[in-house]
Amino acid sequence: MTVEQQFLDYVKKIGAYNEALGVLYWDMRTGAPKKGLDQRSEVVGVLATDVFNLSTSDELKGLLDKLELTLSAADEVTNRVFEEVKKQYDLSKKIPAEEYKKFVILQSKSESVWEEAKATNDWAKFMPYLKEMVATLKQFVNYWGVKDDNPYNILLDQYEPGMTTEVLDQVFGELRSRIVPLLKKITESPNQPKTDFLFKHFDKQKQEAFSLDVLKQLSYDFDAGRLDETVHPFATGLNRGDVRITTKYDESDFRSAVFGTIHECGHAIYEQNVSEELTGTPLAGGASMGIHESQSLFYENFVGRNPKFWEQNYEKLQSYSPEQFGDVSIEDFLRAINEVKPSFIRIEADELTYALHIMIRYEIEKGLFNGDLKVEDLPDIWNAKYEEYLGIRPETNAEGILQDVHWAGASFGYFPSYALGYMYAAQFKAAMLKDIPNFDELFEKGDLSPIKAWLTQNVHQYGALKKPLDILKDATGEGLNGNYLADYLEEKYTKIYQL
Amino acid sequence: MTVEQQFLDYVKKIGAYNEALGVLYWDMRTGAPKKGLDQRSEVVGVLATDVFNLSTSDELKGLLDKLELTLSAADEVTNRVFEEVKKQYDLSKKIPAEEYKKFVILQSKSESVWEEAKATNDWAKFMPYLKEMVATLKQFVNYWGVKDDNPYNILLDQYEPGMTTEVLDQVFGELRSRIVPLLKKITESPNQPKTDFLFKHFDKQKQEAFSLDVLKQLSYDFDAGRLDETVHPFATGLNRGDVRITTKYDESDFRSAVFGTIHECGHAIYEQNVSEELTGTPLAGGASMGIHESQSLFYENFVGRNPKFWEQNYEKLQSYSPEQFGDVSIEDFLRAINEVKPSFIRIEADELTYALHIMIRYEIEKGLFNGDLKVEDLPDIWNAKYEEYLGIRPETNAEGILQDVHWAGASFGYFPSYALGYMYAAQFKAAMLKDIPNFDELFEKGDLSPIKAWLTQNVHQYGALKKPLDILKDATGEGLNGNYLADYLEEKYTKIYQL
Repeated sequence: MTVEQQFLDYVKKIGAYNEALGVLYWDMRTGAPKKGLDQRSEVVGVLATDVFNLSTSDELKGLLDKLELTLSAADEVTNRVFEEVKKQYDLSKKIPAEEYKKFVILQSKSESVWEEAKATNDWAKFMPYLKEMVATLKQFVNYWGVKDDNPYNILLDQYEPGMTTEVLDQVFGELRSRIVPLLKKITESPNQPKTDFLFKHFDKQKQEAFSLDVLKQLSYDFDAGRLDETVHPFATGLNRGDVRITTKYDESDFRSAVFGTIHECGHAIYEQNVSEELTGTPLAGGASMGIHESQSLFYENFVGRNPKFWEQNYEKLQSYSPEQFGDVSIEDFLRAINEVKPSFIRIEADELTYALHIMIRYEIEKGLFNGDLKVEDLPDIWNAKYEEYLGIRPETNAEGILQDVHWAGASFGYFPSYALGYMYAAQFKAAMLKDIPNFDELFEKGDLSPIKAWLTQNVHQYGALKKPLDILKDATGEGLNGNYLADYLEEKYTKIYQL
Repeated sequence: MTVEQQFLDYVKKIGAYNEALGVLYWDMRTGAPKKGLDQRSEVVGVLATDVFNLSTSDELKGLLDKLELTLSAADEVTNRVFEEVKKQYDLSKKIPAEEYKKFVILQSKSESVWEEAKATNDWAKFMPYLKEMVATLKQFVNYWGVKDDNPYNILLDQYEPGMTTEVLDQVFGELRSRIVPLLKKITESPNQPKTDFLFKHFDKQKQEAFSLDVLKQLSYDFDAGRLDETVHPFATGLNRGDVRITTKYDESDFRSAVFGTIHECGHAIYEQNVSEELTGTPLAGGASMGIHESQSLFYENFVGRNPKFWEQNYEKLQSYSPEQFGDVSIEDFLRAINEVKPSFIRIEADELTYALHIMIRYEIEKGLFNGDLKVEDLPDIWNAKYEEYLGIRPETNAEGILQDVHWAGASFGYFPSYALGYMYAAQFKAAMLKDIPNFDELFEKGDLSPIKAWLTQNVHQYGALKKPLDILKDATGEGLNGNYLADYLEEKYTKIYQL
C-alpha cells in the first residue's frame, strides 16, 4: 500500500469514530432515555479518546513525515487533507499533554459554572473561570509560536481559515457605519409593524407538517436526512448521505420552527452536496464556520424571508393555523416577520441588528488577546457597547455578558463567523443574480432547484478543498465585500419601513 | 492499579464499543436515511474490528494470565467476568485467523444467498453454502478440542451455557409426548374459534397508543427506554438505563404489534433490571438466550394472553377500534387470540405448536453434527418431520427448510433456546404462584409490579452472574422440568376448546 493510501485510510478511521460520535450525540439530543446517559457518556469518552489519540499519535506523525516527501506527486484532495491534518496535529502537539488535560477539565467545569451563573445572574461566580480560560488560551497561543503581535489571528484562523483582524476591522467598520444610521431611521419610523399575531397558538403537529413541506420545496433530500425535534435546533452531517436536521416547536411563536428549520436546512444542504470524493475526510464538513453560516443564512433570509416565497406559501400557512392568520394580510405578515428591534439577546436578534451583536463580541475578544482589556471590566464594556451600537443597555449580566456559552467553552474567535456568514451570503446572492437573473421567478414556478444547483456548483461541492476566501473569490469575482449586505439591508428596510 | 481493575477497565472498553455499535444498529433499523448506510457500514466495520481485536489481543491474554493467579481473592463479579471473557477468548483464538476470516466472508455471503434462495424458492442455490457452513463449523468444533463424541453440545453451550443433548432429548421427548396428542384433540375439536375479526383494519396510530398504554401497565420504564417502529421487532439493551423496544404495526393484524410489543417488553424489562454492578460487562446482557426468551414469553403468554389481563383492557381495545371489536364478546376475543392451528412458519406459530417447530430444527442440527445426516437430504427430512409432528407437509422449500435465517448465519445451537424459553417461563410461573398465590388478582387491582419484582428478584438482577440452570434451580427449587409447560398447555386448551 502506498503511503498516500495508508495516510488516507488512517484519516478515514478517525472520520469513522467521529461519525459514530455524531450518531451518539444526535441520539442523546433527540430522545435517548435519560437513565442511560451516564453510561453513554462513558462510551462517548472512549470514542473521543480514540479520536484524540489517533490525531496526535506517533504513527500519524510518521505518516505525515513520509507523505510530505512525495506530496508534490499526490492529488489535490490528498494535499488538502494532509494540510488540514498536519495543522491540527501541530496545534495539538505543541501543547504539553498535562496542560491540555487541565484545559479540558477547565473547559467542562467552566461550562457548568457558566450555566449556573447565567441562571442566577452571578457574574462574580463565572469571572474567575473566564479569567483562567483567557490566560490558558494566551499560553496556548504562545506555544503555537505566534510572533506577529496579533495573537487573536490564530484563534480566528481556527474557525475561519485565513481571516485576520485587519480584514474584519475594515469590513465590520464599513458595515457598522451603514447599519447604525439605518437602525436609527428604522426605530424612529412611524411605520412599525403589527406583530401580536406572531405569538398566537400554532399547533405543534401543524408546524411540523408545514416545516416538512418547506424542506421539500428547498430540495432537502429526505433519503439523505431526517427532521427531528430538539430543545436547541441543529444540523449534523454524519456523512453526505445522512445529514440530519432538528428543530424546536414553540406553540406561542411559530417562527422558531419555521425559520429555524429553513436555517438548519441551509447547513444540511451544504453537507449533502459536498463532493463524494471527500467522504470520510475532514474536508467533508465544509470550508469554515463562516461559509457554513452563509449557506444557512442564504436559505433563511433570501429564501425564507423573501416575499416571493410567501406568495407561494402564505395560504398554506394560513390553512395550518387559520385562527392565527385568517385575517392577517400577506403584507402585514411580511412586515411582521421582518421586524427590526434592538434587543439584548443575540440569538433572538433580527437580520439587521445581528451583526452589531457580533461586532461587540469581536471587539471584546480582540481587546482581550491583542490589547489590554481585563476580564474584570467586561460587564461595563459590554453594556457601554450595547448602548453605543444598539441604543439599549442591559440591566442584568444574564442578558448581557453572561448570555453566550462560547467563552465558557473556550470558543474565542468563533463569533465573527456569524457576521461573516451574513456578508458571504449577500455577496453570493449578488453573484447568483448574474447567473440567475430571474431569481424571483423561480418561486412563482415552484422550482427552487436552480438555487441549490448554483450553491452546489460554487460552494457545496468543494467542502474544505478550497479555502473560504478562495471560494468567495471564485464564486463572486472579488474578495470579502460587506457592501452587498449593507445594500441589501438598506433596500429591504427602506421599503418595509417606508423610510 | 490492580490487575483486577485493569482487567475490568479493559472489558468495559470492549463494552463501550459494543454499546456504540448497539446505537448504530438501532439507528440503522429505526430510521437512518438510506443514502448514508454504505458509509455507516464502514463505521460499523471499524468499531466491530476494534471489538474483535480487543477480544483476541495479546494484552487481554496477559491480563487473563495475570488475573488467573489471584482470582481466588477477587469478588464474584470479577470471577464470572473472567470466566466469560476467557471462554470467548479461547473459542476465538483456537481458530486460525485465516480460517476465521474465510468464515466471516462465508457467513455474510451465505446470508445474502439465503435471502435470494428463500425469495425464489431455490434450495439448490443455498444448499452448497449450507454444506460449507456445516463443514466449517465441524472444523471449528475440532479446533475447540471436543472429544466426547457430542460436538453439538459445544454449539448448544454458546447459546445456553450448560445445556446438553442429554437434557434436551429427555425434556423435548416428554413434552412432545404430551403436545402431539393434545394438538390432535384440538384440531379434531368441533369448537373452533371465530377469527375473522382479527384481520379487520386497526389504525396504526391507535395501535401505537394502545401499545404504549400496555407498556406502562407492564412496568416498562420509559425513562430507561423508548418504543419505535421497525420491520422486524426487537429489543436492544444498550445499557440498563437504555433498553429500547421496537414493534411492527400491521393494520390488517393488530396482534403483531400488541403481542410483539408485550414480548419485546419482557426482554427489555429483563435488561432494565440487571444489577447495576454488572454495567458495561458482558454479564449485563442476561444469562442465556433461553432465559431471555423465558422473560419475553412470560409477559407475552402469562400476562398478554391472560383472560384477567383482557378483562381490564378489552374495553380500551374496543374503543381504539370500535368497528372491529364492537360486536365481539371478550370470550370470543380470548378464544381467537388463543387459536391453535398447525402452520408451516415458525414465527407465526401459536403457543402450543411452537415447540414442535423447534424440535424439528433441533433434531436436524443434532443429526448434522452428532450423526450422519447430510445437508442434501434436509428438505425431505424437514417435510417428513412436519408431517409427523404437525400433521402438515410444506409444499415449497420457501415455507420449509428455507424459512429461517439462522443456519445461513451460522447460528447452529440457537433454536433450542426458544423452546427452553417456554419451559423456563412455565416453570417460573409455577414457582411465582407459590409466592404470589393471588396472581390473577393483580390484574383486577391494576398493579402488575409484583410480577416484575418477583422476576427481578429471581432472574433479572443476576444477569449472567449465575448460569441458566442455576437461576432456574434457585428460583424454582428444581432442574429443568417440561411438565409445567405441558400442564399449563393442557389445562388452558382443554378449557378453550372444551376438550
